[in-house]
Amino acid sequence: MNYLCRMLENKNQSRTPLSELGEFKLIDHLTKNALKHHKSTLKGVGDDCAVIDNSGLQTLVTTDFLVEGVHFDLSYVPLKHLGYKAVMVNLSDIYAMNGTARQITVSIAVSNRFPLEAIEELYEGIHLACNTYNVDLVGGDTSSSTKGLLISITAIGVVDPEKCVYRSGAGANDLLVVTGDLGAAYLGLQVLEREKQVFQVNPNANHELDNYTYLVERQLKPEARKDVVKLFDDLKVKPTSMIDISDGLSSEVLHLCKQSKTGCQLYEDKIPLDQQVISTCEEFNLDSTTIALSGGEDYELLFTVKQEDYPKIKGNPNFSVIGHMTQDEGIVELVTRGGQKVPVTAQGWNALN
Amino acid sequence: MNYLCRMLENKNQSRTPLSELGEFKLIDHLTKNALKHHKSTLKGVGDDCAVIDNSGLQTLVTTDFLVEGVHFDLSYVPLKHLGYKAVMVNLSDIYAMNGTARQITVSIAVSNRFPLEAIEELYEGIHLACNTYNVDLVGGDTSSSTKGLLISITAIGVVDPEKCVYRSGAGANDLLVVTGDLGAAYLGLQVLEREKQVFQVNPNANHELDNYTYLVERQLKPEARKDVVKLFDDLKVKPTSMIDISDGLSSEVLHLCKQSKTGCQLYEDKIPLDQQVISTCEEFNLDSTTIALSGGEDYELLFTVKQEDYPKIKGNPNFSVIGHMTQDEGIVELVTRGGQKVPVTAQGWNALN
Repeated sequence: MNYLCRMLENKNQSRTPLSELGEFKLIDHLTKNALKHHKSTLKGVGDDCAVIDNSGLQTLVTTDFLVEGVHFDLSYVPLKHLGYKAVMVNLSDIYAMNGTARQITVSIAVSNRFPLEAIEELYEGIHLACNTYNVDLVGGDTSSSTKGLLISITAIGVVDPEKCVYRSGAGANDLLVVTGDLGAAYLGLQVLEREKQVFQVNPNANHELDNYTYLVERQLKPEARKDVVKLFDDLKVKPTSMIDISDGLSSEVLHLCKQSKTGCQLYEDKIPLDQQVISTCEEFNLDSTTIALSGGEDYELLFTVKQEDYPKIKGNPNFSVIGHMTQDEGIVELVTRGGQKVPVTAQGWNALN
Repeated sequence: MNYLCRMLENKNQSRTPLSELGEFKLIDHLTKNALKHHKSTLKGVGDDCAVIDNSGLQTLVTTDFLVEGVHFDLSYVPLKHLGYKAVMVNLSDIYAMNGTARQITVSIAVSNRFPLEAIEELYEGIHLACNTYNVDLVGGDTSSSTKGLLISITAIGVVDPEKCVYRSGAGANDLLVVTGDLGAAYLGLQVLEREKQVFQVNPNANHELDNYTYLVERQLKPEARKDVVKLFDDLKVKPTSMIDISDGLSSEVLHLCKQSKTGCQLYEDKIPLDQQVISTCEEFNLDSTTIALSGGEDYELLFTVKQEDYPKIKGNPNFSVIGHMTQDEGIVELVTRGGQKVPVTAQGWNALN
């Protein structure tokens, strides 16, 4: 399948200059398909504010900024995927509090090189994410930019005060657990970058991404772990601390330890890796542990549970126990396959050699 | 007073490259002075989400994007003022629902031409606005941009469901009322633009802004009308519809009429103008009514009340009755001083000549 090539060539034929619509018409146009999923959404787009009624629950708010040329490269990221992913990045933060996402606002700034159809494609992905994750698009702002496309999303959610999980609740001897597998999204980006360079040199070269479909999908269309929040409820497990993996495992472990005032022992051989991650790391001559620790954009959940909850999560294919917390505040170490202990740093880990 | 010149020359001497701090350190650094004003702010910066508990009230959410080169020009807007104004723009939307602002999130994307000190100055203005308006800074995101400075702010507020005012509630014969005066912020921008051009031609020219202090202040340091929300409460007035004036009076009147399915008769001689607006319009050879209708950025409140509430607002120096709503849906007219009726359009109004 010539996946990348298709994306690169998939230029919209119809082009409506944004200047043909005013700002208000653009907002109306882009949000007219927004469904309303929640009774708590009293008012969506079309007034000074969205109005949300969350009586009895705590309200969660999170926000992220995505900048063209910094967070994404439109030469290989289809706009629909970008819209979908931009929503996921925010929902993931709500789930990382053990909460339910209910509303988002989406603001974009866009240069005049984008025709209306491109922005519609972006919003198709946003609407798809909203409908799939049962979230209401309730507001936003559209603006010109002097360069490129910028997306700022704010997600609003709710959580039962009894169930809210902070980064700061881990205790010594709690188990450190991660959902899914790690490193694939980062490798997907490397694969796409390589294909882009091949394409630039020779647009007629044969692009073969079949061996990397999982990696590319993890990069372009990540799914936030809403299912895990439900799973916690079903299993009657409340994590003691939790964070989502956006910047990479090592960075997130350090956040949990810092805010919980604990240390951590992390076991290299327990880190879950997909087979495509292992084979592609070999091909690219990369260390798969480094990729899992530093890659980022996995949007899996990293959490701690009390040891007494181990039977509830044991054997569940969604969970991998990868370490345990210690009382040695600030000492975060990777125990390698060879049994050595290596300090974990935010930039990855200090390689052995 | 050589006001503009001082601003243009006020370059920070100390320059810390942003690359010296990581993203996390930058957020910590910029938000460490954020005070917590509300018990409802359970968790501010430092977790995946802010946690806000608004039991029993409705939650309001609004967001705005400010882009360098589109919404502001840093050659004459001091960064501290910009930060302050960026918050005002959002709070104004909360007040326009008759609500109370409680929290904001601030996301910035910034190119590497900005040293840390510049971003600190921006946040000084943001913190000042938060402290003055009793609002908590609870989260955000910092990011690189490939060009310039971009600011995305989301404000969260609450409102008693009985008091929430939408744009859609105006009825025929309701009075149309505006707070403060109009047109000054737009003229302030014209004055600053002119001074910038003079400065570019001759940096040693004598800049005299004393005659325009009110205009410049309205442009650079607008104040959202939190006081008016309190005043409504004190006077026991609930507007039937309300909007804030960000894009200009004519545009906002059209919004109210469209959403309320009414028409409107607006009286030219009732539009409140400051003396500096009148004199500067004469000097610049501009029509003051056009400026008031189309200027924008006033951040005053425009609202409608039932005629029976007229005694409650009559004579109050904060309010000017400038027209009345009609049942003629879609017919929005300016009644000129000469008694002629001119259709009001979003771009201002069709001038008489």
